Amino acid sequence: MLESVLPDYDSPVFAGWRSAAGDTWRQYIEHEFVQGLEDGSLPRSAFTAYLVQDYIFLLNYSRAWALAVVKAETAAQMRTAAATVNALINEEIQLHLQVCAREGISEAQLLQATEASENIAYTRFVMDAGLSGDLLDLLAALAPCVFGYHEIGLRLAGSHDTTALYREWIDTYAGDEYGSVCFAVAGLLEDVAAARLGGTPAASPRWQALCQRFNSATRLEIDFWQMGLRLGGD
Amino acid sequence: MLESVLPDYDSPVFAGWRSAAGDTWRQYIEHEFVQGLEDGSLPRSAFTAYLVQDYIFLLNYSRAWALAVVKAETAAQMRTAAATVNALINEEIQLHLQVCAREGISEAQLLQATEASENIAYTRFVMDAGLSGDLLDLLAALAPCVFGYHEIGLRLAGSHDTTALYREWIDTYAGDEYGSVCFAVAGLLEDVAAARLGGTPAASPRWQALCQRFNSATRLEIDFWQMGLRLGGD
Amino acid sequence: MLESVLPDYDSPVFAGWRSAAGDTWRQYIEHEFVQGLEDGSLPRSAFTAYLVQDYIFLLNYSRAWALAVVKAETAAQMRTAAATVNALINEEIQLHLQVCAREGISEAQLLQATEASENIAYTRFVMDAGLSGDLLDLLAALAPCVFGYHEIGLRLAGSHDTTALYREWIDTYAGDEYGSVCFAVAGLLEDVAAARLGGTPAASPRWQALCQRFNSATRLEIDFWQMGLRLGGD
Amino acid sequence: MLESVLPDYDSPVFAGWRSAAGDTWRQYIEHEFVQGLEDGSLPRSAFTAYLVQDYIFLLNYSRAWALAVVKAETAAQMRTAAATVNALINEEIQLHLQVCAREGISEAQLLQATEASENIAYTRFVMDAGLSGDLLDLLAALAPCVFGYHEIGLRLAGSHDTTALYREWIDTYAGDEYGSVCFAVAGLLEDVAAARLGGTPAASPRWQALCQRFNSATRLEIDFWQMGLRLGGD
Repeated sequence: MLESVLPDYDSPVFAGWRSAAGDTWRQYIEHEFVQGLEDGSLPRSAFTAYLVQDYIFLLNYSRAWALAVVKAETAAQMRTAAATVNALINEEIQLHLQVCAREGISEAQLLQATEASENIAYTRFVMDAGLSGDLLDLLAALAPCVFGYHEIGLRLAGSHDTTALYREWIDTYAGDEYGSVCFAVAGLLEDVAAARLGGTPAASPRWQALCQRFNSATRLEIDFWQMGLRLGGD
Repeated sequence: MLESVLPDYDSPVFAGWRSAAGDTWRQYIEHEFVQGLEDGSLPRSAFTAYLVQDYIFLLNYSRAWALAVVKAETAAQMRTAAATVNALINEEIQLHLQVCAREGISEAQLLQATEASENIAYTRFVMDAGLSGDLLDLLAALAPCVFGYHEIGLRLAGSHDTTALYREWIDTYAGDEYGSVCFAVAGLLEDVAAARLGGTPAASPRWQALCQRFNSATRLEIDFWQMGLRLGGD
Repeated sequence: MLESVLPDYDSPVFAGWRSAAGDTWRQYIEHEFVQGLEDGSLPRSAFTAYLVQDYIFLLNYSRAWALAVVKAETAAQMRTAAATVNALINEEIQLHLQVCAREGISEAQLLQATEASENIAYTRFVMDAGLSGDLLDLLAALAPCVFGYHEIGLRLAGSHDTTALYREWIDTYAGDEYGSVCFAVAGLLEDVAAARLGGTPAASPRWQALCQRFNSATRLEIDFWQMGLRLGGD
Repeated sequence: MLESVLPDYDSPVFAGWRSAAGDTWRQYIEHEFVQGLEDGSLPRSAFTAYLVQDYIFLLNYSRAWALAVVKAETAAQMRTAAATVNALINEEIQLHLQVCAREGISEAQLLQATEASENIAYTRFVMDAGLSGDLLDLLAALAPCVFGYHEIGLRLAGSHDTTALYREWIDTYAGDEYGSVCFAVAGLLEDVAAARLGGTPAASPRWQALCQRFNSATRLEIDFWQMGLRLGGD
């Protein structure tokens, strides 16, 4: 059951978007790439290719979170968004460099890698959500990655089949540290939604467009997994 | 009576913001600088100083309307915002250059003028409204200038005291061409407000913040008139 | 010979970027999709699918040109960029609607179409070039489309094989009206490059990065043609 | 002598801008407000009014540094800019809240304060430098505050006349912690200038415009001190 691994932070807005995304969300969370991480069947080459692209992704995703700081309307919103930038730049990216190093990928290689078009599509879509809309539009594009990775981490953490190879990745996204980032982001999302949409967000005339933005970003996540398989050859 | 010269386009959102701005709006529309345009008592040096700053203002205000194109969510919204950019760049600025030339101010002088801090404050405030918020936040900052100048133009057009010196300026902003720009912007504003706030904008949790933004921009208009008097010496 | 159809406006900067893009540029200009337009072998379904996506592209590409207005540093730069926005919104898009209508695609269908990921990648990459860099960085991402389409138009206009079906498309991009847009953009590019890089742009430390940005945008053009073939089925 | 208190981090680019700003820089560094901090003659009401506005300033200035993260071109640039956002949000602002609390100003009062037009002009000018230009344009607008406050801190730290009242403020900006922020920003500035302008920045065609931007921001700093005196009564 997909629902059973839902994290326990409470964000009705995220829950609403996730529910509206329906099968798209499921295709992201249960993607073949994810299944491969779970049962160890994912080709190492696909994982490595994913890691290289994800390094570039994290840099641009951090830039998008910095744009959230630019667009914040209160000091508290700024602090949460800035803390997320830090968690990405100083923790998640550092972990990436370590894992990559162990897999024999140097930082120089990461920096010279060509950004795949799936990668470009995703992060630039998020940036443009921020440039064209308000903080809530940006959060709708940022949300699938933040919350989805924790959901995937928790799903896979509960599995007994995972091999050592992908364990560290799973532990990162299932872990308390990452969970606390999600918790803070959930609070930010609820705060911004209350300020921009009021007490019943789903009744807002913007709700449909926000659901679509969340859905589009989720589709770009699916493409990102697919990119891992594509670049990993076979 | 202030109300008697209200233009006849119908924008409940603008009417709401204008009403909420209360005395601030009145201080803008009935500013000493405006009175001076009406009865001809405005020192020519103040008008000239204003014209020089207003040239720089129009360039940055056009940039802010271009940002509205960037932030538009439909083709129709884009067309209205782009048409406004054109009206500013190709009509209003050209008129400015003509008036300035007749007053003995060359384009070279305009380009070398130092931008006054009141000018910087106003246009950059508007730009940041667009960068930090959505199209509606930007429109709340753009609205006082668009609609206020027409209101002032209509007020002064009805007066019999105006001298030839300021007649051209008054006729421009009272005129049908400028009025049609206001009409289009009113339509854009209602369209965006309906999409972002729904059928009863004043009931939205954002209403108060939008009123404040409109009010802040109106205060910056007052400062702009004051700048004209200040730079005009005496 | 690829060189033989080079348009006659003179932009050393564009010529430098085009030359540096080498095979990538050739793959764009001589893409299978383009060959299919030339000899009439392109499946009508591919052309139609392309038209639908290109409508969405043009809206976002216009937004990117509006961002160029925001980033312009002189009144002349603003006017050229604003004129390009107009040419796109009021001429190119209108032509699109006509062609689409004749092919049985209504505006409603265009508006409901799902934006393909290749489309997202391209336009959002361009927008982010503008947000992250200066006007020259943005122009490097905008240039392949503006100039490449004219080059393709001129190539295909010289061919005797073209069928009536794709004639109108070819005539548009080979035509003088579109050519004059390119001419103006070439002037803008040279003006901005002179102001930002000086008299020998290729000697600037930014040159390599600008070439890469132009090259990336050209790759996204190739992906866009490929998208047409992909969506066109077969 | 003004030169004698120059901090010891080495940034030829900042040194060039500072030198080009000449008297404007001196008027900022030696402003009556600063002299009043040094000899204790500054009215407490002016200091308090300044603190309230500076709280709002710091929030917007942090947003501008977040925009620097958005515009960074390397991971190292991102980290420095993000670290500066943190230093502002989590250290400098916190200190502000403490000082304000001791002066009897609650956070609620700070949040309800009306932003002065001098404050609006300065921070929005900086934001727009980032939106319209590249990271270097943004840094030219950010630099006067970062480096100027350290220079002022060091000048005043060397004085024996300072009273306890303004001691904490002086110690903050003279201190090693703040000095290390300046050191990191100096490195960032040199790195970005090298990438965008090459080895001899002052020979770049952009140099003049960058000097002007730095000079404009310095003038807005002067206005900010003046605002403190104005709001402080007298």
